[in-house]
Amino acid sequence: MTVYLVGAGPGDPGLITVRGAELLGMAEVVIHDRLSAVELLELCSEGTILVNVGKTPGGPTVPQETVNELLVQYGRSHSVVVRLKGGDPFVFARGAEEMAVLIDADIPAEVVPGITSALAVPAYGGVPATRRFSATSFTVVTGHTDPRTDAPAVRWDHIAKVGGTIIILMGVANIAEISTALIAGGLSPATPVAAIRWGTRPQQQT
Amino acid sequence: MTVYLVGAGPGDPGLITVRGAELLGMAEVVIHDRLSAVELLELCSEGTILVNVGKTPGGPTVPQETVNELLVQYGRSHSVVVRLKGGDPFVFARGAEEMAVLIDADIPAEVVPGITSALAVPAYGGVPATRRFSATSFTVVTGHTDPRTDAPAVRWDHIAKVGGTIIILMGVANIAEISTALIAGGLSPATPVAAIRWGTRPQQQT
Repeated sequence: MTVYLVGAGPGDPGLITVRGAELLGMAEVVIHDRLSAVELLELCSEGTILVNVGKTPGGPTVPQETVNELLVQYGRSHSVVVRLKGGDPFVFARGAEEMAVLIDADIPAEVVPGITSALAVPAYGGVPATRRFSATSFTVVTGHTDPRTDAPAVRWDHIAKVGGTIIILMGVANIAEISTALIAGGLSPATPVAAIRWGTRPQQQT
Repeated sequence: MTVYLVGAGPGDPGLITVRGAELLGMAEVVIHDRLSAVELLELCSEGTILVNVGKTPGGPTVPQETVNELLVQYGRSHSVVVRLKGGDPFVFARGAEEMAVLIDADIPAEVVPGITSALAVPAYGGVPATRRFSATSFTVVTGHTDPRTDAPAVRWDHIAKVGGTIIILMGVANIAEISTALIAGGLSPATPVAAIRWGTRPQQQT
């Protein structure tokens, strides 16, 4: 028995990996978030148990503790369980926590990386993360930290000085504060910016 | 006619995207780098023209200008051309340059993102790029800049202070200088480090 933490990719259903698609076809149970690519669930075989733990607009949030319990419960009772997460399981997706819970419960677990929206969304918007003669690094940062977090505050002053591409996820709500902090940190106010929503989906706006 | 810049992923052949695999099956011409997953070329149909522009050990390097010429030449003469690149075409892979060449030549071009080794290799090594309560950003940087580059030097002093996970690609040759610069920039000498080679392949070493 194994629980596979599978990345669904950023939205375009063609951007799941071949391995991820194969596992969806083999899965007895799929525990999934609210996906931007619901088409992916059509890859499951008939009879697959689908458990939606995503937040629906206006609906309740499933607490992370409940997700963890479901992973352990189904991981013990079924041989192929897929935990399907948007993007990449290890990039702002709590995959590390879920992996730790499975290891603690002695349930074999494997990660199958997904295309992260952090890189695919800029790519679909025509923005490469790196360029040979100008951008030799990129920094991906969340613009919306969990209010319960103990993590140190994001160091916008240093991010402003790293010199590469800066990719901010979930930054809309705090866009004024973030821009101000980056400019205060030394980033030119003339720095080109792209804002993208619904990235990689037909309704993408740049 | 279209030239598709397709990411092959980090090495495990199951980590190419479904869309990338489909395009390999449809391609009349595939212009590929030296791939860690040569199995991917088996997805091509019989009769597909395979053009290897990768550097073989001890062999000559194909100049980027030649690759650009091949892209334009085949892009004009064939309807489905795949440019297959390791990892993600827009992450340290000159995809931005090749896209610009195709746009200048009025040849339709599309990017199909790939799983970048920058995230998948740590994942296969058990290292998540982010964790909810500790790492709220990550920075990916090359440890080996093109000696011909006009790009500003990597700002290790600021990278050391950003506070998230630091992922260094192609860093082995300069590991002593990089470590010294990061510690001088304020990173604790006790910071945990993982070094990984042949990531996502059966012979991976961590």
